Amino acid sequence: MLTHMCRWLAYSGSPILLDDLLYKPQPSLIDQSLHARLGVETTNGDGFGVGWYGVDAPPAPILFRGVGPAWGDLNLRELARSISSPLFVAHIRASTGTPVEQTNCHPFRHGRWLWAHNGAIREFALLKRDLVLAVDPSLYPSIAGSTDSEVMFYLALTFGLHNDPVAAVERMVGFVESVGHRRGVADPVQMTVATSDGDRLWAFRYSSERDSRSLYVSTEMSTLHEMYPDNENLHRLSDETRAVVSEPLGDLAGAWHPVPESSYAVVQKGADAVGAFRPRTS
Amino acid sequence: MLTHMCRWLAYSGSPILLDDLLYKPQPSLIDQSLHARLGVETTNGDGFGVGWYGVDAPPAPILFRGVGPAWGDLNLRELARSISSPLFVAHIRASTGTPVEQTNCHPFRHGRWLWAHNGAIREFALLKRDLVLAVDPSLYPSIAGSTDSEVMFYLALTFGLHNDPVAAVERMVGFVESVGHRRGVADPVQMTVATSDGDRLWAFRYSSERDSRSLYVSTEMSTLHEMYPDNENLHRLSDETRAVVSEPLGDLAGAWHPVPESSYAVVQKGADAVGAFRPRTS
Amino acid sequence: MLTHMCRWLAYSGSPILLDDLLYKPQPSLIDQSLHARLGVETTNGDGFGVGWYGVDAPPAPILFRGVGPAWGDLNLRELARSISSPLFVAHIRASTGTPVEQTNCHPFRHGRWLWAHNGAIREFALLKRDLVLAVDPSLYPSIAGSTDSEVMFYLALTFGLHNDPVAAVERMVGFVESVGHRRGVADPVQMTVATSDGDRLWAFRYSSERDSRSLYVSTEMSTLHEMYPDNENLHRLSDETRAVVSEPLGDLAGAWHPVPESSYAVVQKGADAVGAFRPRTS
Amino acid sequence: MLTHMCRWLAYSGSPILLDDLLYKPQPSLIDQSLHARLGVETTNGDGFGVGWYGVDAPPAPILFRGVGPAWGDLNLRELARSISSPLFVAHIRASTGTPVEQTNCHPFRHGRWLWAHNGAIREFALLKRDLVLAVDPSLYPSIAGSTDSEVMFYLALTFGLHNDPVAAVERMVGFVESVGHRRGVADPVQMTVATSDGDRLWAFRYSSERDSRSLYVSTEMSTLHEMYPDNENLHRLSDETRAVVSEPLGDLAGAWHPVPESSYAVVQKGADAVGAFRPRTS
Repeated sequence: MLTHMCRWLAYSGSPILLDDLLYKPQPSLIDQSLHARLGVETTNGDGFGVGWYGVDAPPAPILFRGVGPAWGDLNLRELARSISSPLFVAHIRASTGTPVEQTNCHPFRHGRWLWAHNGAIREFALLKRDLVLAVDPSLYPSIAGSTDSEVMFYLALTFGLHNDPVAAVERMVGFVESVGHRRGVADPVQMTVATSDGDRLWAFRYSSERDSRSLYVSTEMSTLHEMYPDNENLHRLSDETRAVVSEPLGDLAGAWHPVPESSYAVVQKGADAVGAFRPRTS
Repeated sequence: MLTHMCRWLAYSGSPILLDDLLYKPQPSLIDQSLHARLGVETTNGDGFGVGWYGVDAPPAPILFRGVGPAWGDLNLRELARSISSPLFVAHIRASTGTPVEQTNCHPFRHGRWLWAHNGAIREFALLKRDLVLAVDPSLYPSIAGSTDSEVMFYLALTFGLHNDPVAAVERMVGFVESVGHRRGVADPVQMTVATSDGDRLWAFRYSSERDSRSLYVSTEMSTLHEMYPDNENLHRLSDETRAVVSEPLGDLAGAWHPVPESSYAVVQKGADAVGAFRPRTS
Repeated sequence: MLTHMCRWLAYSGSPILLDDLLYKPQPSLIDQSLHARLGVETTNGDGFGVGWYGVDAPPAPILFRGVGPAWGDLNLRELARSISSPLFVAHIRASTGTPVEQTNCHPFRHGRWLWAHNGAIREFALLKRDLVLAVDPSLYPSIAGSTDSEVMFYLALTFGLHNDPVAAVERMVGFVESVGHRRGVADPVQMTVATSDGDRLWAFRYSSERDSRSLYVSTEMSTLHEMYPDNENLHRLSDETRAVVSEPLGDLAGAWHPVPESSYAVVQKGADAVGAFRPRTS
Repeated sequence: MLTHMCRWLAYSGSPILLDDLLYKPQPSLIDQSLHARLGVETTNGDGFGVGWYGVDAPPAPILFRGVGPAWGDLNLRELARSISSPLFVAHIRASTGTPVEQTNCHPFRHGRWLWAHNGAIREFALLKRDLVLAVDPSLYPSIAGSTDSEVMFYLALTFGLHNDPVAAVERMVGFVESVGHRRGVADPVQMTVATSDGDRLWAFRYSSERDSRSLYVSTEMSTLHEMYPDNENLHRLSDETRAVVSEPLGDLAGAWHPVPESSYAVVQKGADAVGAFRPRTS
């Protein structure tokens, strides 16, 4: 039930060719979709997606999602060589339950917002109706797929994602936990989440049992510039460039540091923020 | 909104190779998926499905559904040459709204039941939440896709499809109409429906505005045997064999007669039944 | 056999959002993929493709190709809103023979070259081996699919497409005709073709029986600017902007003129060129 | 280049539900498609196929092939519960080169023959033209995909598969090796192959470097019946029932024995045959 073992990557900073982050690191996110060649522990072959904001600030991000394994998708490979973006979210999926369909592929989009999730709501079939009923009726018709992840997104939107993202996600998790506990589900939530409005990027790491999936933020560029004065790729990137990933990409020592258990990170202009994540039941 | 223009075919009688009904008639249902070659008015290229009961009475029907156009599906062509069934339902889909995904392809299945629909619930996005809320909570988690057709199926199951199929479908339609009227939707329901429990086959033709999609039942085999004494294909089929279709197949004069507006037909052992269809609001 | 009835569109000029040409005209190329809604004579639901050159002159064009109907492809719709290009080729496919697979979707690409074809080589199965044998052995391994169209492309490459595109296509057609005649095929070639190296765009209209599929070039922009002084969309486009299409798009009177039977057109910087197309057998 | 790591299973004997062999063993072939859950060394997520002969001896086998991962294919799961066969071949694919398309999925079929392959022709792009030229021109148009495996099949057909399968495969391998050596490829062939005409089943294990992929035949049923007198599943199967697999299925000790390096096995009525495999260059 908790074998959802997706992977995701979120990027914010200097506009970059998707190829540079999706394919070029060794190992890359796309490599991670194919278990066999890396010795890591899972295959993520049940679809994939990328959502990106354009360089010229369009009103909504663009989505490209497919139901086959990312490692074999020729269109993704082509597009990655063609599209530059200052802010994007990519996801590779491993499903154990809900169907492998385009509407179940992350990231999900609503208006300007993107949402990607790694983890699961335990006993989702048991809780789903109560959770969906709590989604704002005006948002309800926009739910297109059947995943727990998308319901979490619409609950967060219901609880004010537009106004105060951290509080909204805390309320969402608190609500899922309270519904779960009412139904006898011990540790209902397991998640890392990336969400963005095209301006800032939020990352969350939390699980009801306080044993969450891994999450890493790239080290500050200024530090990396000092550590690797000869690495030209790094010097093309602005000081404010960051990536957040479920597993480290590439092999640059010191490039990643883990996001602590039960916390969130905000990647934004100026200083980034990190804080404790506390589910709210009010 | 009402441009859902699917086609379906349901068969009950002597076990027959699917190929004999899906491909061999001229025109066939598969031909009807491809508008261009026939001069009929629509393309039904947004997925397809077949659900069949085995010769040896298995507990549940088998489903084969695909998201591409039926006319080009090599697997469907292969299976049709391989599978015989005494009772099956086939459907080709034309979507204008809900996604082209396997879970949105007809027929839908629940336990021993199959369900295929041609038509639409008008303003479904507006009505969906109210409709889904009325589905029995124990059935709710089984809803896998996002179509109006599947919600109609689960409402019918909620209203007693297992016990009294005609009454259950009448209650379902009455309920959809009452929800629609409450929300200001003038003529909420447009439908022909085929449903079966593997034993009997029910067909419904109804629309709120009393201007329903076409529906035809094959003429009694005994009549056809008399009309075409030299047609060996017909003589292989038992007297109780029937097909119900949204559009006539093949070119056998006298082989089909229309199901009247606002009525239902039951294909079963012994005499078939036809009756008036009256939505119920109790 | 000759029911391949694809459609294509090629564009060269001011960088334009793909959406503006693929979706916005009424009717659009994507509309043309779905027969039913337009009353035109075919459905083109057997895959599609777009190949585009970037604004910043990359070494090779980017391809996006899919095997489902273009009308329902959500990714194509998303990308069209996101990608601008000064030169692209789009194609929607109707197959009657070769499989519906990504490698059989147009446009085909080799190095900097794109190639899209509407038409067929008659009795291709009979002629294929002789044709493929004539492809330069160094090019042979790059043939990825099984269509007549791709073999025509590789023959044209073999016959010097890089150096003299018109002569190379004339030699290709002459060769196919001579192989066909040797094998008793009366009128072997039916084609309109678009090909480009990212700099210029060539369009060909020819058939062995001199009864070719239609082909249209957009009227000179300066003329359109005079005809429609108030049309802002047109005024954003440079004087050298042209589109070549298998069927007129949109409803702008005077916007299209037919390419004559057995001729070719070159869209390029400076004056465009038109000439007679004469298959060569030397 | 040699990372083709497919898996296959061939069965001959008492008619059996596909489900009993494809899904029920622990681990099963379908489990093997998803690396992550088993700790085996590869993912085989690049398509799959099953070809089966009917109980009533139809003239040709039926094919069901898909391009997604076998582990997630709902249709395969449905069909496996529905189809019984006395002789079938199943394959799960891992591609590193040729496209993931239906025509590249095994088994391949020609007339009454099926063919499945695990392995590769080294430097296939370099050798392909010479190999394809040696295919009988009357067979050439039937080559539908782009794999080395299918070319091996058509070469074997050219060299007399219908008349003397072992000699034909030996000639095919000898020919590929001679073409390879002429082009400077050291060890051109790596293979296990299953092929059948619907009556007998041949399995081959060979590689140019004498370090072949694994291959196992199920132990004689009479022996298994003695070893496991209480296993009812085994007792339903006739003495002549055999399975040949690239990796052992299930966990029945003593149920499998390896096919030796450079040898072939024939599963047939009466005593099975095993022999040395010697590539022929005549």
